[in-house]
Amino acid sequence: MMEKKEFLYEGKAKQIYATEHTDKVVVHYKDDATAFNAQKKGSITDKGVINNEITTILFEYLQKKGIPTHFIKKLSDREQLVQKVSIIPLEVIIRNYIAGSMAKRLAIKEGTKSPVVITEICYKKDELEDPLINNDHAVALGVVTYNELDEIFRITYKINDLIKDLFDKINIILVDFKIEFGKNSKGEIILADEISPDTCRLWDKDTLEKLDKDRFRRDLGKVEDAYHEILNRLKTVL
Amino acid sequence: MMEKKEFLYEGKAKQIYATEHTDKVVVHYKDDATAFNAQKKGSITDKGVINNEITTILFEYLQKKGIPTHFIKKLSDREQLVQKVSIIPLEVIIRNYIAGSMAKRLAIKEGTKSPVVITEICYKKDELEDPLINNDHAVALGVVTYNELDEIFRITYKINDLIKDLFDKINIILVDFKIEFGKNSKGEIILADEISPDTCRLWDKDTLEKLDKDRFRRDLGKVEDAYHEILNRLKTVL
Ligand SMILES: Nc1ncnc2c1ncn2[C@@H]1O[C@H](COP(=O)(O)OP(=O)(O)O)[C@@H](O)[C@H]1O
Ligand SMILES: Nc1ncnc2c1ncn2[C@@H]1O[C@H](COP(=O)(O)OP(=O)(O)O)[C@@H](O)[C@H]1O
Ligand SMILES: [Mg+2]
Ligand SMILES: [Mg+2]
Repeated sequence: MMEKKEFLYEGKAKQIYATEHTDKVVVHYKDDATAFNAQKKGSITDKGVINNEITTILFEYLQKKGIPTHFIKKLSDREQLVQKVSIIPLEVIIRNYIAGSMAKRLAIKEGTKSPVVITEICYKKDELEDPLINNDHAVALGVVTYNELDEIFRITYKINDLIKDLFDKINIILVDFKIEFGKNSKGEIILADEISPDTCRLWDKDTLEKLDKDRFRRDLGKVEDAYHEILNRLKTVL
Repeated sequence: MMEKKEFLYEGKAKQIYATEHTDKVVVHYKDDATAFNAQKKGSITDKGVINNEITTILFEYLQKKGIPTHFIKKLSDREQLVQKVSIIPLEVIIRNYIAGSMAKRLAIKEGTKSPVVITEICYKKDELEDPLINNDHAVALGVVTYNELDEIFRITYKINDLIKDLFDKINIILVDFKIEFGKNSKGEIILADEISPDTCRLWDKDTLEKLDKDRFRRDLGKVEDAYHEILNRLKTVL
């Protein structure tokens, strides 16, 4: 039995607890929702339960396909056992279609299909509002080497191919997503954190209805329904 | 004789005139100075004359060292004859030390030496305030191909090595600079625009005194003196 021990730290959506193994932690998924660098705060009923389940499905799928991830097992409704990592403070973003900050920044109509798969990295630092950076900045900041970036992008493209396919099977367009990587106790770079409607833009292929956190960010209503819809569709392809 | 013909267009610092040859234009250097995306406007006495002379020195030097540039010859105090190009709408930036927007954006102390030479590209579009972008954005915007970017960065690094050395000889630290590239009538990518105290950060090696447009941007006084100082020092190594 893996016992949850002392609280280590928490972020906007999850709490991290120690276990009896120094290289494993428990992730507890909260219902808290924030947007625009935590200027907007709220809560989405059962989000923690649903995102735990969705992340479990996606990480098990990716793991099976050869992607190295922190995921070990789901422990309960809101909890996962994962490899403890030291998080690389980069938000690694893939964009298949243009939306959100990139649409705004470059005045491109939201929903435009990008002619190339776009990778972005942002420096994960709340005080700086997670600014967009490039590879040289990341290396100059000392958070990563050029070789580590190569590895991270290699894995990220594979993840995009794999989950884009999976979402396609359930009639969902994977518009964009954000992932985080960390280094485990062996120094390996592995996928950490979560993949959920909090961290992806997911549009119904027929109606283009948004089924992700944009419903919360933009006050579109039916937020809980959207998260449930994604989980239910994913269950049909398990 | 190369006759200046009709006015074609102008920017914040220079005017472009047609000539009898469709593949050549005259650049006229103005005294107008702007900063912060033209929110701050002013004029620096004789800046046009000095920047024409400084750019001439630097482009002749780079050309001699094998860098392909638009420069053909200096025509007068304020005018140069250059190859007409279609400008690639990217500001290509090199940073040897951290200053300006990068210092602010990432909360790094201005004047910190970067452990790696940093390249940045910004999308040259006044309405968007020249946003920082990455290679994928540039290609998605359709302004350049990945191969063209490789070529641009290859030339840019060489330019940095060459002018960093030259400024070092006159006791100046080349902190950072911005250049523009264009395609000439043969489709070749060549260095265009200017290299001057308007487009570089130049610090005296001993006193760290700023000898560039930051004197105008930050109201440090002695703006004209700084531009003259750079020209005078450059003349000593000709
Ligand atoms: N395997 C892991 N080991 C250690 N920390 C992790 C792991 N996976 C994710 N984290 C971190 O847990 C913290 C809590 O997550 P979250 O609430 O999403 O934070 P944030 O507010 O930064 O988005 C984050 O700092 C995240 O990077
Ligand atoms: N060789 C060239 N052929 C055509 N246009 C050029 C050439 N070199 C520079 N330009 C362009 O001339 C215009 C005027 O320059 P400038 O006043 O510096 O403009 P800006 O306000 O964009 O900085 C700019 O659009 C610049 O890109
Ligand atoms: Mg998070
Ligand atoms: Mg200019």
